[in-house]
Amino acid sequence: MAISALQFERSKYAPKLPKALQGPVKVVVGKETESVADQEEIQKLFPNTYGMPLITFEEGADTGSLPVMNVGVILSGGQAPGGHNVISGIYDGLKKLNPENKLYGFLGGPGGLVDHEYMELTDEIIDEYRNTGGFDIIGSGRTKLEEEAQFDKGVEICKELNINALVVIGGDDSNTNACVLAEYYLQKETGIQVIGCPKTIDGDLKNEMIETSFGFDTAIKVYSELIGNIMRDANSAKKYWHFIKLMGRSASHIALECALQTRPNVTLISEEVAEKEQTLAEIVDYIANVIARRAEDDHNFGVILVPEGLIEFIPEMKTLITELNDLLAEGQQSANEFKALVTDAEKRTYVIGKLSETSSKVFASLPEGIAKQLTLDRDPHGNVQVSKIETEKLLIEMVDVRLAEMTEEGTYKGSFSAQNHFFGYEGRCAAPSNFDADYCYSLGATASVLIGNGKTGYMSSVRNTTKPADKWIAGGVPITMMMNMERRHGHMKPVIQKALVELDAAPFLKLAENREQWAVETSYVYPGPIQYFGPTEVCDATTKTLELEQGK
Amino acid sequence: MAISALQFERSKYAPKLPKALQGPVKVVVGKETESVADQEEIQKLFPNTYGMPLITFEEGADTGSLPVMNVGVILSGGQAPGGHNVISGIYDGLKKLNPENKLYGFLGGPGGLVDHEYMELTDEIIDEYRNTGGFDIIGSGRTKLEEEAQFDKGVEICKELNINALVVIGGDDSNTNACVLAEYYLQKETGIQVIGCPKTIDGDLKNEMIETSFGFDTAIKVYSELIGNIMRDANSAKKYWHFIKLMGRSASHIALECALQTRPNVTLISEEVAEKEQTLAEIVDYIANVIARRAEDDHNFGVILVPEGLIEFIPEMKTLITELNDLLAEGQQSANEFKALVTDAEKRTYVIGKLSETSSKVFASLPEGIAKQLTLDRDPHGNVQVSKIETEKLLIEMVDVRLAEMTEEGTYKGSFSAQNHFFGYEGRCAAPSNFDADYCYSLGATASVLIGNGKTGYMSSVRNTTKPADKWIAGGVPITMMMNMERRHGHMKPVIQKALVELDAAPFLKLAENREQWAVETSYVYPGPIQYFGPTEVCDATTKTLELEQGK
Repeated sequence: MAISALQFERSKYAPKLPKALQGPVKVVVGKETESVADQEEIQKLFPNTYGMPLITFEEGADTGSLPVMNVGVILSGGQAPGGHNVISGIYDGLKKLNPENKLYGFLGGPGGLVDHEYMELTDEIIDEYRNTGGFDIIGSGRTKLEEEAQFDKGVEICKELNINALVVIGGDDSNTNACVLAEYYLQKETGIQVIGCPKTIDGDLKNEMIETSFGFDTAIKVYSELIGNIMRDANSAKKYWHFIKLMGRSASHIALECALQTRPNVTLISEEVAEKEQTLAEIVDYIANVIARRAEDDHNFGVILVPEGLIEFIPEMKTLITELNDLLAEGQQSANEFKALVTDAEKRTYVIGKLSETSSKVFASLPEGIAKQLTLDRDPHGNVQVSKIETEKLLIEMVDVRLAEMTEEGTYKGSFSAQNHFFGYEGRCAAPSNFDADYCYSLGATASVLIGNGKTGYMSSVRNTTKPADKWIAGGVPITMMMNMERRHGHMKPVIQKALVELDAAPFLKLAENREQWAVETSYVYPGPIQYFGPTEVCDATTKTLELEQGK
Repeated sequence: MAISALQFERSKYAPKLPKALQGPVKVVVGKETESVADQEEIQKLFPNTYGMPLITFEEGADTGSLPVMNVGVILSGGQAPGGHNVISGIYDGLKKLNPENKLYGFLGGPGGLVDHEYMELTDEIIDEYRNTGGFDIIGSGRTKLEEEAQFDKGVEICKELNINALVVIGGDDSNTNACVLAEYYLQKETGIQVIGCPKTIDGDLKNEMIETSFGFDTAIKVYSELIGNIMRDANSAKKYWHFIKLMGRSASHIALECALQTRPNVTLISEEVAEKEQTLAEIVDYIANVIARRAEDDHNFGVILVPEGLIEFIPEMKTLITELNDLLAEGQQSANEFKALVTDAEKRTYVIGKLSETSSKVFASLPEGIAKQLTLDRDPHGNVQVSKIETEKLLIEMVDVRLAEMTEEGTYKGSFSAQNHFFGYEGRCAAPSNFDADYCYSLGATASVLIGNGKTGYMSSVRNTTKPADKWIAGGVPITMMMNMERRHGHMKPVIQKALVELDAAPFLKLAENREQWAVETSYVYPGPIQYFGPTEVCDATTKTLELEQGK
């Protein structure tokens, strides 16, 4: 396999570990925990794994090798930078506990456990993947481990391979399922432990004990590099407004962090839109006004950040989509009437006539292409495919219309020309930044110590992350501690609370405090690409979100 | 102005210079030159600047300060990484010749010379922009310097500011115009010299004396970083085909270089499409066949590179577009008939009926959206806006249709799901790689020595660029040497020959030799982001194109 010069040099990097994990580890048992909400229900659902104590690691005395253990690891869900380092952290951690320990990787995600697809990870394989991006070492997948039949298939293969513990590397849902699995395996006395590791580049798996989920640091640095480059282009050419959509469907952490890194003219935050119940027209107005104010200074250029999930956070759009889903559902008379119409104009008029007053207004305001997409491109269940809506193009078209009105009114004198971008896949598999390389390796090492100490239903936790790595605090958090009950597909389920952007927390307040200035002035900052070898100020900086959350 | 940690550290970088430019310079006059073709016509058009000798610099003895000179610099056309370093190279070079020398920047491109918009560049300003991307120090613009009235306005401001020389930093057209300006200023005995510097990220200003144009190195490294990240994602998720369009309308150097860096499954090269007179259907077939072959190994994923200008290189598409332009031209009866039709289907049928047999077949084969775009979205002259055609989406739709046919035929058993990307603005203003930082600074320093020695009508030339910088050979090339006569807008004009991808040269041959293997196997290489501080193998590597062209 040919590798690049950078990959070759980077493979030599030795990730930094918390002091407690550098030698023999002493396990300190903290106070017992309870779930963040719905304590009674959660306890009832997790009788064996509820209320366990927090665990922290300290430097300890050498206690010799532990008995031989085999461990299985699973990558679950979308890629995030650093997954390979979690695995190498587990691997090295296990070998440190006992050189005879083995690590198996289940292939293609949780499905590999169920279908008994696996490989043993060896020195040679692990070395090829140290400090690299991607999940390609064993592959990932989106199979959800939710059924007892799946759990039982898991037991089969674990027995066959003498596996004592599984590590599930995944997001909030995968870790919820890991905890269900841990509970089930305890209850069935299978002797198989389950440990979770917190991954999501969206950054929405985050709480008091999990300061950040891995991959977020690297991904936002890739996106910020690109945003900065585009800003410099905008400020050089002085003729385009760039609308940049950023990954993040359920939370806007990425858009917020990229804004703090680069200082764009406009940053939309889905959580704020929902909280203030903003309409699409209000959002368009806000953007158009910023454009008009910059045009007064002859600055007919700018950069606007749009979170991927925006549409679903606009209350009136949510309502519209629900109504459309009902109106055009397979088998409805209205759906048949709609289909019988020939021209786009007829179809549009028909839909407008059938919607509620509010929704028909919203629908009528949408650009033709988007309106058509909402009524035609539907998933197999007949539902609108919200994720296929090109939000950045929708905004460009609507802003263009609004600016034309403002030109008529005399409130805008400028020229508007726009470019659209979407950054998602560009960052999910980047080689991890020093932070993510260290953090992931530490999470993996933590998992191996938790396993060595017989823990199950825990998530690896590495805290104090704005300090140098040797001051990081490693340990385990009972997964039940992060849970509450939420309605999912019509049923109440125990789930890990999703961390949305908090409008009263420091990162958002920093944006709110500065955005007026950033809107009108050209305050761009150009972060440049991730550096692996240079001065520590450049290579080891954490995210602004972490710094602000920790009061720095 | 807030700057990033990287920008702060990077501002300290001292670009490397060829040995000959590190101290006092000796000017060595080489043999006289002639244009690459059409010698007689070019000589007639450039009586004063034709046939001048090549100039090379060697280390010389100190000859003391030269008389005070003022110089003006102009950025012309699209941004390319390193423009600021050309300017700092000129600035430092001038100050070395005589600390009293002044450098003026004309603002917003060549228009600044005509409109007398300028600023004096000082230590403080220059220091703020060293080793940064963008053209924002003085701005750029697309005004073409072609009229004598413009040239005369230039003389006015040069006289006012005592400017002895202008440096035009631009692409092939801007350098052609720089040479016309040099000729005119000589003929009018204005005493104003004109020097060009070779910029284009597309890489199409290139010849025996200009090994590479600046910015290409950095831009392809940014694009290759992103392509590599997407490849790693493709190879991890194993479910998407990524169609990536890359900047480069008139030449496919960027797509070719990125392919050599990253080894995608399919790389389209416009020059090959034109040479082999490939049809759109053949291109779609080629892609679909690669997809089908990978599907046999259950590899339902891959990466495809598409050059931005592809459509205009497909002979049948060129013909179709010409016919459409004629058919729907403002005022034509057919245009009015077309407009009177109501439904898309009617319009489509009408157009198909009016085109030549070949073109109507091509038009009928196009996806609905693209066909509509071709007939509706037209520029103010009624012409099809080729640059707005989303080639990557066109290919995805057509490949999808072809794969459905192949499924029917039993020649394809796989699942096809695609993502599209376009990378252009992401790379144009990146902070220059070490290579571009050094190369640009050297080009600027070279320009100042050419000026100090009274040269005009020359382009800065820095060669031997696959060697370490101190071994680079700097000097000047008469711009007329690179010219030939070409038809432009109906007239024969002297222009610098555009360097397209040569199908018999080493870089393309390398692709041709390997693409069969890269198509079927997963041979991806992940270059990662540009590094500024690490090992020289990582930080100072030149492009594969340069290495192969120079037989490395």
